[in-house]
Amino acid sequence: DPAIHHLKTRVYYEDTDHSGVVYHANYLKFFERAREDIFGVETLVRMWNDKGIGFAVYKADIGYHDGAQFGDLLDIRTTWEKQGPYRVVFFHSAWRPGLSKPAVTCTLELVCLGPGKKLLPIPEFDFLD
Amino acid sequence: DPAIHHLKTRVYYEDTDHSGVVYHANYLKFFERAREDIFGVETLVRMWNDKGIGFAVYKADIGYHDGAQFGDLLDIRTTWEKQGPYRVVFFHSAWRPGLSKPAVTCTLELVCLGPGKKLLPIPEFDFLD
Amino acid sequence: DPAIHHLKTRVYYEDTDHSGVVYHANYLKFFERAREDIFGVETLVRMWNDKGIGFAVYKADIGYHDGAQFGDLLDIRTTWEKQGPYRVVFFHSAWRPGLSKPAVTCTLELVCLGPGKKLLPIPEFDFLD
Amino acid sequence: DPAIHHLKTRVYYEDTDHSGVVYHANYLKFFERAREDIFGVETLVRMWNDKGIGFAVYKADIGYHDGAQFGDLLDIRTTWEKQGPYRVVFFHSAWRPGLSKPAVTCTLELVCLGPGKKLLPIPEFDFLD
Repeated sequence: DPAIHHLKTRVYYEDTDHSGVVYHANYLKFFERAREDIFGVETLVRMWNDKGIGFAVYKADIGYHDGAQFGDLLDIRTTWEKQGPYRVVFFHSAWRPGLSKPAVTCTLELVCLGPGKKLLPIPEFDFLD
Repeated sequence: DPAIHHLKTRVYYEDTDHSGVVYHANYLKFFERAREDIFGVETLVRMWNDKGIGFAVYKADIGYHDGAQFGDLLDIRTTWEKQGPYRVVFFHSAWRPGLSKPAVTCTLELVCLGPGKKLLPIPEFDFLD
Repeated sequence: DPAIHHLKTRVYYEDTDHSGVVYHANYLKFFERAREDIFGVETLVRMWNDKGIGFAVYKADIGYHDGAQFGDLLDIRTTWEKQGPYRVVFFHSAWRPGLSKPAVTCTLELVCLGPGKKLLPIPEFDFLD
Repeated sequence: DPAIHHLKTRVYYEDTDHSGVVYHANYLKFFERAREDIFGVETLVRMWNDKGIGFAVYKADIGYHDGAQFGDLLDIRTTWEKQGPYRVVFFHSAWRPGLSKPAVTCTLELVCLGPGKKLLPIPEFDFLD
């Protein structure tokens, strides 16, 4: 489906904890890597350096169903929806190889902040059309 | 209020990102430090080493209202509620010094897993009485 | 010995990896927490916010002798030495409870950087007298 | 040069700190990603799961010359040398795009540990021939 963004990300030692699976907070890192890929890192860098504009997570609802393990090549799947002028909602999921259900799912709301943490309308992006 | 658990935790360089505030995933680390303090780290270590029993996050709903900054001594406030035999719900919030509203709030469900990731009833703990 | 700075820091889930011990990069976090305590976090915040002055690690030589485990209350011991006007050297070690040898040792050089990453002489601090 | 291993790794938000550059401990993560790629993650997983054998960092000497920034696509370059039966030394460096000198260099010694943290000879690997 062209409307689903895929990012493959490897589970390294750094991502796991002593229980043997990925530490629960680290899925938020994987999901952000996907969003940065969707926005385009160069674009994010330019917005930040030129205008002091960035994106901030406003809300994240995460469900943990299975634990990814060291060595897994995860498929991070993402879709999104602009909701009004000030908010983009991302629907992320992390899939372990060969399994038919996601290990972790996340609904995440992003807002746009300018200098002084001022709330700004979401700028135009091709992927939001 | 004796029913609120407080953990003071400092925001270090490691916790921030280049936007100047705490990286959004790291609040989950602060909240876990509070839970480990509530359970008692020695108890958690013993359960894990002797019986292979641990706790896993099943669900986490996080709201971000303000960004904590380098040097802040955060007050992590936690209350909890056992819901049925298999689930404990924790209500966490992170308070920046001198402010009257929390920077971040989180409702988090914990389950208990034994060897082979088998779901177990939550064991008895004094703090759950 | 009054010339040794001690910082107690707990090993949490977040610090470990799936091999069961603290992830090797994370000792650098523990050592930085100690240095921030020695400098005084308020001072560091003020220097950064008012003048854009901060400290940067220039060199770190780490030796790993034993692996700290989940639940350990580590004693981070630090001494230091100013070497010339531009450099402070810190000697860190991480001690597991009840053991007579350090788990990890680290010799680390710090320099002071101003705006535009300009090298500056180390400012005066009481602890450097 | 075929004897140099290259790994491209992006600098994400999670890697930076509030000073605007990559947090110093995180280069150790980048270097480990390179080593896991050199060893082969599947091989590492199999050794760990089947025999409880893994690799541990014994020594790491790091030099910091420049700070990588958000958005940089780093080139992690690695060479290595087996030194006796028990030790492999890796020479890592992190290169920012378009620059002629490495931002960070690291000489790192790895040993092989079996169950009970017993020191074992380095197993045979094609890349070590």
